[in-house]
Amino acid sequence: MTAGGEMLALIGRGAEEIIPAGEMEKRLATGRPLRIKAGFDPTAPDLHLGHTVLLNKMRVFQDLGHECFFLIGDFTGMIGDPSGRNVTRQPLTREQVRANALSYEEQIYKILSPERTRVVFNSQWMEELGTNGMLQLAGKYTLARMLERDDFHKRYAAGHPIAIHELLYPLVQGYDSVALRADVELGGTDQKFNLLMGRHMQEAYGQPPQAVLTMPILEGLDGVQKMSKSLGNYVGISDPPGEMFGKLMSISDELMWRYFELLSFEPAAVIAVWRRESEEGANPRDIKYRLAFELVARFHGMAAAEQAKAAFITRFCDGAVPEDIQRVELASVSGGYPIARLLKDAGLCASTSDALRQVQQRAVRIDGERIEDQALLLPSGGEYVIQVGKRRFARVCIGF
Amino acid sequence: MTAGGEMLALIGRGAEEIIPAGEMEKRLATGRPLRIKAGFDPTAPDLHLGHTVLLNKMRVFQDLGHECFFLIGDFTGMIGDPSGRNVTRQPLTREQVRANALSYEEQIYKILSPERTRVVFNSQWMEELGTNGMLQLAGKYTLARMLERDDFHKRYAAGHPIAIHELLYPLVQGYDSVALRADVELGGTDQKFNLLMGRHMQEAYGQPPQAVLTMPILEGLDGVQKMSKSLGNYVGISDPPGEMFGKLMSISDELMWRYFELLSFEPAAVIAVWRRESEEGANPRDIKYRLAFELVARFHGMAAAEQAKAAFITRFCDGAVPEDIQRVELASVSGGYPIARLLKDAGLCASTSDALRQVQQRAVRIDGERIEDQALLLPSGGEYVIQVGKRRFARVCIGF
Repeated sequence: MTAGGEMLALIGRGAEEIIPAGEMEKRLATGRPLRIKAGFDPTAPDLHLGHTVLLNKMRVFQDLGHECFFLIGDFTGMIGDPSGRNVTRQPLTREQVRANALSYEEQIYKILSPERTRVVFNSQWMEELGTNGMLQLAGKYTLARMLERDDFHKRYAAGHPIAIHELLYPLVQGYDSVALRADVELGGTDQKFNLLMGRHMQEAYGQPPQAVLTMPILEGLDGVQKMSKSLGNYVGISDPPGEMFGKLMSISDELMWRYFELLSFEPAAVIAVWRRESEEGANPRDIKYRLAFELVARFHGMAAAEQAKAAFITRFCDGAVPEDIQRVELASVSGGYPIARLLKDAGLCASTSDALRQVQQRAVRIDGERIEDQALLLPSGGEYVIQVGKRRFARVCIGF
Repeated sequence: MTAGGEMLALIGRGAEEIIPAGEMEKRLATGRPLRIKAGFDPTAPDLHLGHTVLLNKMRVFQDLGHECFFLIGDFTGMIGDPSGRNVTRQPLTREQVRANALSYEEQIYKILSPERTRVVFNSQWMEELGTNGMLQLAGKYTLARMLERDDFHKRYAAGHPIAIHELLYPLVQGYDSVALRADVELGGTDQKFNLLMGRHMQEAYGQPPQAVLTMPILEGLDGVQKMSKSLGNYVGISDPPGEMFGKLMSISDELMWRYFELLSFEPAAVIAVWRRESEEGANPRDIKYRLAFELVARFHGMAAAEQAKAAFITRFCDGAVPEDIQRVELASVSGGYPIARLLKDAGLCASTSDALRQVQQRAVRIDGERIEDQALLLPSGGEYVIQVGKRRFARVCIGF
């Protein structure tokens, strides 16, 4: 493989599309550091592995010597929804934007190289653009093409209202590429329309149009729906090591290979060997350990990864937690779920008085830790392996 | 009739619609000077009677003590057509806008009271609005409602491109009413959508929505198509007195009553008397004199009107130009229409040599003036009454 081919293979790994492929090759061939753009939401970030698919790809570009623009789309974020229909979309203040940016920076440098990352805000050039410039920008695109965008098309066809500012937001994203003079823009497949808008606008403003690389949307732990905090099927990059390790060990074998492709920095060739080993009878669990270990180590360091792995083995293998324990979903209780009620509701105890007795007798464990507080309240949004005595287990999710 | 009823009658004269009628009454009833808005194109004005329909209505408001905002829509004019499709729509410079404003002022004060007129430019508040404000504004209207506008609807349905900035222009016009805190907006019936947008935007920005008054579009001299310079069926307010008088005398009796309603300041009751007289057998020509006289006097003063009337009578009545002379339309000839060829083509002479002889014998008059130059070239775009000898007449139009 040539050096160029190797670069392209690294860049293309896991990618859905490169548009146009020739443009990417051409820019890489120039040998100069390319300007890589990726846009992020200005709302409070709480990154999970789904977000890191893009960050990982940015890191690949950085390792090849390129400069990444971590673009925070604060301009539209500070506007909110002026049509007033979307009440949950409150405009952000400048202070919130700054705080969110700091929070991003605390998280992204677990993956990105700070030296080759520039955090930028599009309010910087959008406010400068002015009313006049905004109308100029709006003159560079037609309504018909805008309505080709899937969501607009569907809403328009269904007779659902589209406020006119919504038509301007994609133009703003496109103009960001002009302002940044981007060589390449990265984004999720759901952003394809906006990424291509960047190409269109660069051409309209006399720049050579960027190459576009789309990454697939990562599935959550369930392997079906996209990873999302609100669906509860996520691994947060700030999840404690033990929790992160446990969640990753819970995924299906099939999903494991997907995660390897999109989340692991192990060379593709190495992963291919493991896959062959697995097909030849190796226990997929042992390969899953490597994935969980790599990811915990990335976000918490090697020592924490070692510890998480050891604890996992102690708890779930040596401690004989069966692999196929029942999963129970419980509605959240405001103020926290009382432990006794939980044990009853999860079917682990016959009654709350039985449950209280079990706690008193130190027969109850949560995630392997013995509990003694009969008044314990479990917060919503958590997932726990609950054990009563030696044989009764349940994986309990509260309030997802 | 009450004072309020009389005011409403004056304001409503000739109007197509008042939306909503109650709002207009309510504002008038406050007794305070109202803020009356009317928008004008920022391109070089060369006002004709069609434009004065609106100016006359503004004057009515001024006479009732209200303040008129003569709004020059320079903001969008200075942008031009950023989509680049409309090459004839070049952006105006600030200097051109200023020059055009001066030209407006030279013309409009023939009708408007300078004391109660404020010439304003929407660039003033639109540039201040900024990108952010523009997006806020765009959030206050939906695409579906915008596409209800007739021209957008037709273009969209026909698959013709609509650039997105075009959707913003009506919003700008609506916002002008907010910036001006308009009580009333006047406009042609073709502007109804934009006038109602003013109401919508004022409400969206927390102001009570203006009343809207639409005036019909004035027909040109042909009585069919709208008066327009490019159609050649217009009376320019800077037309020389004789030309203006003659053009007005050429209109049909039916159109005369229309012009009385929309252009004359004679009280409606007086006009009603004249109409009765005409129905009872008075010569409509004599009533038409009054219209022509009033309008020439408005733009050129009483003396000029007297003179134009006298000249007209001398030329066309004493000179016995029949009222029903034939109208001939000739294609334009580059460099000018040679008189001899014209006399032949109009059927007034048998041949060009006959025509040349008639000129030599001083038997040819153009608009009552004897001509002697056999090489005379008549420019295109003119209309002339040509007379050969005592009895041969034609009204010749060249190159319309």
